[in-house]
Amino acid sequence: MEIEIATIGGYEEVGRQMTAVRAGDDIVVFDMGLNLSKVLIHDNVQTERMHSLDLIDMGAIPDDRVMSDLEGDVKAIVPTHGHLDHIGAISKLAHRYDAPIVASPFTLELVKEEIQDEDKFEVGNDLVEMDAGETMSIGDKNELEFVNVTHSIIDAINPVLHTPEGAIVYGLDKRMDHTPVIGDPIDMKRFREIGREDNGVLCYIEDCTNANKKGRTPSESVARSHLRDVMRSLEDYDGGIVATTFSSHIARVTSLVEFAEEIGREPVLLGRSMEKYSGTAERIGAVEFPDDLGMYGHRQSVDRAFERIMNEGKENFLPVVTGHQGEPRAMLTRMGRGETPYQIDDGDKVIFSARVIPEPTNEGQRYQSEKLLGMQGARIYDDVHVSGHLRKEGHYEMLDALQPQHVIPAHQDMAGFSGYVDLASSEGYKLGRDLHVTSNGNTIQLV
Amino acid sequence: MEIEIATIGGYEEVGRQMTAVRAGDDIVVFDMGLNLSKVLIHDNVQTERMHSLDLIDMGAIPDDRVMSDLEGDVKAIVPTHGHLDHIGAISKLAHRYDAPIVASPFTLELVKEEIQDEDKFEVGNDLVEMDAGETMSIGDKNELEFVNVTHSIIDAINPVLHTPEGAIVYGLDKRMDHTPVIGDPIDMKRFREIGREDNGVLCYIEDCTNANKKGRTPSESVARSHLRDVMRSLEDYDGGIVATTFSSHIARVTSLVEFAEEIGREPVLLGRSMEKYSGTAERIGAVEFPDDLGMYGHRQSVDRAFERIMNEGKENFLPVVTGHQGEPRAMLTRMGRGETPYQIDDGDKVIFSARVIPEPTNEGQRYQSEKLLGMQGARIYDDVHVSGHLRKEGHYEMLDALQPQHVIPAHQDMAGFSGYVDLASSEGYKLGRDLHVTSNGNTIQLV
Amino acid sequence: MEIEIATIGGYEEVGRQMTAVRAGDDIVVFDMGLNLSKVLIHDNVQTERMHSLDLIDMGAIPDDRVMSDLEGDVKAIVPTHGHLDHIGAISKLAHRYDAPIVASPFTLELVKEEIQDEDKFEVGNDLVEMDAGETMSIGDKNELEFVNVTHSIIDAINPVLHTPEGAIVYGLDKRMDHTPVIGDPIDMKRFREIGREDNGVLCYIEDCTNANKKGRTPSESVARSHLRDVMRSLEDYDGGIVATTFSSHIARVTSLVEFAEEIGREPVLLGRSMEKYSGTAERIGAVEFPDDLGMYGHRQSVDRAFERIMNEGKENFLPVVTGHQGEPRAMLTRMGRGETPYQIDDGDKVIFSARVIPEPTNEGQRYQSEKLLGMQGARIYDDVHVSGHLRKEGHYEMLDALQPQHVIPAHQDMAGFSGYVDLASSEGYKLGRDLHVTSNGNTIQLV
Amino acid sequence: MEIEIATIGGYEEVGRQMTAVRAGDDIVVFDMGLNLSKVLIHDNVQTERMHSLDLIDMGAIPDDRVMSDLEGDVKAIVPTHGHLDHIGAISKLAHRYDAPIVASPFTLELVKEEIQDEDKFEVGNDLVEMDAGETMSIGDKNELEFVNVTHSIIDAINPVLHTPEGAIVYGLDKRMDHTPVIGDPIDMKRFREIGREDNGVLCYIEDCTNANKKGRTPSESVARSHLRDVMRSLEDYDGGIVATTFSSHIARVTSLVEFAEEIGREPVLLGRSMEKYSGTAERIGAVEFPDDLGMYGHRQSVDRAFERIMNEGKENFLPVVTGHQGEPRAMLTRMGRGETPYQIDDGDKVIFSARVIPEPTNEGQRYQSEKLLGMQGARIYDDVHVSGHLRKEGHYEMLDALQPQHVIPAHQDMAGFSGYVDLASSEGYKLGRDLHVTSNGNTIQLV
Repeated sequence: MEIEIATIGGYEEVGRQMTAVRAGDDIVVFDMGLNLSKVLIHDNVQTERMHSLDLIDMGAIPDDRVMSDLEGDVKAIVPTHGHLDHIGAISKLAHRYDAPIVASPFTLELVKEEIQDEDKFEVGNDLVEMDAGETMSIGDKNELEFVNVTHSIIDAINPVLHTPEGAIVYGLDKRMDHTPVIGDPIDMKRFREIGREDNGVLCYIEDCTNANKKGRTPSESVARSHLRDVMRSLEDYDGGIVATTFSSHIARVTSLVEFAEEIGREPVLLGRSMEKYSGTAERIGAVEFPDDLGMYGHRQSVDRAFERIMNEGKENFLPVVTGHQGEPRAMLTRMGRGETPYQIDDGDKVIFSARVIPEPTNEGQRYQSEKLLGMQGARIYDDVHVSGHLRKEGHYEMLDALQPQHVIPAHQDMAGFSGYVDLASSEGYKLGRDLHVTSNGNTIQLV
Repeated sequence: MEIEIATIGGYEEVGRQMTAVRAGDDIVVFDMGLNLSKVLIHDNVQTERMHSLDLIDMGAIPDDRVMSDLEGDVKAIVPTHGHLDHIGAISKLAHRYDAPIVASPFTLELVKEEIQDEDKFEVGNDLVEMDAGETMSIGDKNELEFVNVTHSIIDAINPVLHTPEGAIVYGLDKRMDHTPVIGDPIDMKRFREIGREDNGVLCYIEDCTNANKKGRTPSESVARSHLRDVMRSLEDYDGGIVATTFSSHIARVTSLVEFAEEIGREPVLLGRSMEKYSGTAERIGAVEFPDDLGMYGHRQSVDRAFERIMNEGKENFLPVVTGHQGEPRAMLTRMGRGETPYQIDDGDKVIFSARVIPEPTNEGQRYQSEKLLGMQGARIYDDVHVSGHLRKEGHYEMLDALQPQHVIPAHQDMAGFSGYVDLASSEGYKLGRDLHVTSNGNTIQLV
Repeated sequence: MEIEIATIGGYEEVGRQMTAVRAGDDIVVFDMGLNLSKVLIHDNVQTERMHSLDLIDMGAIPDDRVMSDLEGDVKAIVPTHGHLDHIGAISKLAHRYDAPIVASPFTLELVKEEIQDEDKFEVGNDLVEMDAGETMSIGDKNELEFVNVTHSIIDAINPVLHTPEGAIVYGLDKRMDHTPVIGDPIDMKRFREIGREDNGVLCYIEDCTNANKKGRTPSESVARSHLRDVMRSLEDYDGGIVATTFSSHIARVTSLVEFAEEIGREPVLLGRSMEKYSGTAERIGAVEFPDDLGMYGHRQSVDRAFERIMNEGKENFLPVVTGHQGEPRAMLTRMGRGETPYQIDDGDKVIFSARVIPEPTNEGQRYQSEKLLGMQGARIYDDVHVSGHLRKEGHYEMLDALQPQHVIPAHQDMAGFSGYVDLASSEGYKLGRDLHVTSNGNTIQLV
Repeated sequence: MEIEIATIGGYEEVGRQMTAVRAGDDIVVFDMGLNLSKVLIHDNVQTERMHSLDLIDMGAIPDDRVMSDLEGDVKAIVPTHGHLDHIGAISKLAHRYDAPIVASPFTLELVKEEIQDEDKFEVGNDLVEMDAGETMSIGDKNELEFVNVTHSIIDAINPVLHTPEGAIVYGLDKRMDHTPVIGDPIDMKRFREIGREDNGVLCYIEDCTNANKKGRTPSESVARSHLRDVMRSLEDYDGGIVATTFSSHIARVTSLVEFAEEIGREPVLLGRSMEKYSGTAERIGAVEFPDDLGMYGHRQSVDRAFERIMNEGKENFLPVVTGHQGEPRAMLTRMGRGETPYQIDDGDKVIFSARVIPEPTNEGQRYQSEKLLGMQGARIYDDVHVSGHLRKEGHYEMLDALQPQHVIPAHQDMAGFSGYVDLASSEGYKLGRDLHVTSNGNTIQLV
């Protein structure tokens, strides 16, 4: 059987991920993501109303025109988890394919919301829920399996396409977490089995985000321990404390909610995407928040919540807000500018349970946000965080578990691939033979 | 009563700390430390045999000649903890003063060992043990108190000299740790009391090592959680695992020993200073290691231990060795050069539970050490560590607790002080009035 | 005679410089500058209409209320050169003092323009022109002298107040340039004379902007040689070339104009401040541009110029535009956004004859500007520049020439002073004795 | 005709360059270099006596065993210039091939010296001199041409193999210098011709050392202008001035010699490799030094020269010495350690006309060397230098001139290639099609 891989998007950048695997006549598409920074550099672009081709030209969504070179039928579109760089182009591209969207529960809910927010296209694909550990037939000869992995969002999986020639493991995005706070640990046992069964692993496509970093990405439980340490140290403070983190990072939000209560404060989630992700997670039962946990997204209801906090005494609350990157319109930035009813006083604490995504635009915005907060007297606790992506030793362990015949680094640019290429080379892979450094829009013939 | 502070050493650098406080006719000396880098830059210097003046000229030990300007008698020499930059000059300078050396138990033991290793001078000062929480009279009118603090070595204290004019709090070295793994949490309650009693705090001398860093130094329990995460992730590895950390960091060594056993390996401590610090800590009962924990310092016994490890199967052991900075003669560096019986194989793990002290010489040596280990196949886990020094928010909390009339930044150079000066200025202190940026060899008249 | 120095502004930052020297009953004020970044962090602030106290509260202009502590009369206000951080607060503060503004010709013209643009206050102080090398009596006993220095703007001087107790040399801002392209070399001979005459130098206030940088700031002639190398290498390119630099940097603008003609292109200066500074320099005869050199400041006339360029063929022009820091409203940023009639094509060249001022906001904006230019196909030549401020070896030479009794580092924050403190310490000065690290709002009693 | 390229060494690192091109039955080998850092990491390795295979195993010289896969005869071995990473393995590998070594005059002399110093092997290959602009037949159908380029050593060329299928341009190492101080400018006219003639350029192999750096590498004339500025600024200094630079950088040494005389000092070249390279260059007439220019290599004669300098007054001399990277045994390091008769006094100047090669080992050594010099009072002028390698805009211009069908980045590792891959991709090349990112030991089939 012929096996071919089309590296459609996310092979020259982090963002707008899309990969297609053809096994005989059957094609599976992994991820259809957005590159948000290509949108934001322009003023006043509203993607909801834009046509796919314009977004492709901007570099915002994958250029899927290479799909016409693949001779076969798309049988499934498989987003691996709910981050926008993996699902953000579904509403623009999925309707072109007569295939269901297959995803884990939380991911599928977020896909639904994307589709609902879309103004331009009708996306009518079937939505099929599949849990980690489950499988589905793809045509007569292939099988799709979801292996549970751990990432900075719940319900992340690594899809595996079992073919007669061996397994194709699509390894985006994960870290190796044995104590992930919410959900099950990464299923290394299953990866090791797949590495040893039948024809073994024909090809492994890997998340190289942190491949240039030494050592091992710590578990979410280490971030939790760090966060608890910070928050317990503030237990006696009788003024305002505010926290911010990635809205989609449900495990972190849960820790914030829990520790707020440990130090005697009522947590409140504020900001559009805070409400969206946490609300969705709670609705599908992926997380159990306290019954009375407030979540407010619309500006008016947020401002009312702030007013209540100020009236009842801000020393009794922990607002968990958007704005960890200093985004100009996010809640924390508005608080820094004094545009909300929440009054920051000398000595008030702001916890960034996130790190700055290292790009000059973010760094500039975050710097400004911290400056503005500091001008009002805020004390900053930053970097209370661990990454959701494997570092070098995680990659080493994955190669050791899977023993793949071919490897394809992804989810980075060439500089970002370099650490992975070094590692794979030291493990005996060779560029141009079984180590495929590629770019967007290429196809790789494996069999 | 006149109060005067002589900033003798460690006010232009990290290293060779020494400060004298005169309260009326009584003088207390805090710390007498060594600046090791000033020794190491020269080839083949052996400090044991050197005269004080030569070491002063090299910048290796404090220039205590300024002491002759202070009109009073030295009543006590008080090392705050057992690191060499705080006790390493005692054997060269203490004999000049007719005063006891007063220290906490572990510190005092290390001072004894320093004195025994000294070849040039007879150091006959009385050695007086005093625990955190205890006090001692200094002349008729003053009292010395030890407040328990937390640092990267056990038994660290902050000495406080209570005078009729208020307290002088000598704040070197500490982090604010409420869950320090070994020993008691930092005694913030006592600091807050001191801040409010009598005349309050006349002067606070602060450890500025990390004053330019934002946020809060995590607790040792966070490092422990990180270390455990790393070691548990290696549980299934059936080859060699080696760890290195600061020899004097008894809490970390204890965690390594514990987690070694959790993953089914026998810990062994190897290297001269590993044996020294852990042996001393165990001897005085500061820590309880497993009965059969091997500690070997002399090269021959280390090599015998390595031979035993190789014979019995290195997959059953965790050697905890010296060499975390890539020091050319340390054990790990020798292992990298293949100079020990321990054989590193492809895939073996080396855990640096330490970070590189950021100075080009260290960075170069550590890089070489990692290169050599890597050439033999070792996989590196680095930075499994937290600092022992306060960051900016710890400094903020200390100022808040003590409300000192005067502050003196210490334990850094001018660039290192800058973050502290910014902080103190934002809290209302003013250079040239009550915020004293000074240098080695100055005296500051407070009353 | 009593000599006192008030360090009013610019001793905790680069920006809003202001220093007063009292010699007996006579006071001279050096510089009254603006800290522009404190204005820009707020949206929509228009300083022209703001009251001084509000600007003081924002940290935008010096807090001159400390002047009331100085017992004497202000006899002169002396801006050293025309940069905004030295003259930008004159229109807000000078009217409070009954004293003339004394400055070199170009500086005085720029002061006049500042005063004309002011909406809130009537600034009626006399404007007195004085050239480098000239002197003026200040009261009966003191004399003010201008010594020629070299900086990134023409007509910069270092004012020296000769008092019976020795000279006060105000050393802001300069580099040591013996071949400055425009104007005379720095007058080191005069500095050396002042160092040796009468009572020598009582006090030297130094520009520490680059005091942490090793070596020597190159001459403007090195930047010119670099710029020429870049431009000559583009001689054969037949598309668009655009350059940007500091508008006030007349020597650099002159080089750009000259080299444009060398490679057969017509230079055109575009952007409000390009027109302002170059126009002023030409008007007072400080520089001789080609007769037909176009300078356009108003947006409409700029756009007309761009239209002409596009019509006549952009390969025949070198637009020299504003926007070297990626400022959102500057000309080059507008070009990147496609908001001007100038069309950037694949392969067109953009020369940044400037470096990014190292602050995250600038870095973010400049990054965005380069991204936008790059998306249109522009090739970027950056860092074709040398700084206008002394580095460490220049400071060493100044201390050697002046042999001052006291030194006061200025024009930086504490971290920025640190390199200067190291240098001065190694030359025998001592903190708290004759080396005065101070902050805004202090006074230092010298005699 | 089949065209094949074997990327033997220097495709995963900077160092041990070696590339073979097969055109039909004829093979030409470009460069046979050494990776010195792989030697130096071991103590006490003497390469002169080592066998090739041991050096290959260490990664010190290219693994040329892949040559046996190429079906054809080696017709020429062509080192491009005299740096060790291009000629340092000739004495270990060339004797295996029955082919002449063809090089430009200076390069050939240095090759001869390498061969003479070799203890292990007899290298009997013919040595053929060929100048830039000349050509030589390679078999019946191919022709070898040398195109003049500019680099940090004189007599550098880019060899071009003209085949019936188009030209193979081997682009290592160069910068684009139109005013190179010594020798002719880069022959861009010829490159442009080659790009347009016949079948054009089939393949371009490019020096990516600086491919991640923006802009354009300045000309040597800019470094010269910078150096002159530094030295003229020291004209009045009446103590010691010492300079160091790359020994093989004849243009820079020439500038140092010239400017020494301009400021009234006698230049003296000191250190083994100073004598070697300058002596060789003078002997073959590539440079004309003053008749009485002293060059001393052996330690005894160097020390005698230092004694003469001290006796006659060091203010009359400019020693130009080895040691710009802080190499432990180089002359400047010995001077820092006080191991030579040259006495460094307070205020003496040391000019590093070089930059630190950015690798932690170098950085550590250089830092130590500067520390030791500083402890004796030396003032440091560093970074008076420009690189010898193209930056991004030089690469852009080369692609524009040559319009190659295929490009192969070389002289870097994967991270180092990344900027070049970005550039080539933006110019329409595609990974896996005509943009070949490869590694050591691969072969690429072009026709």
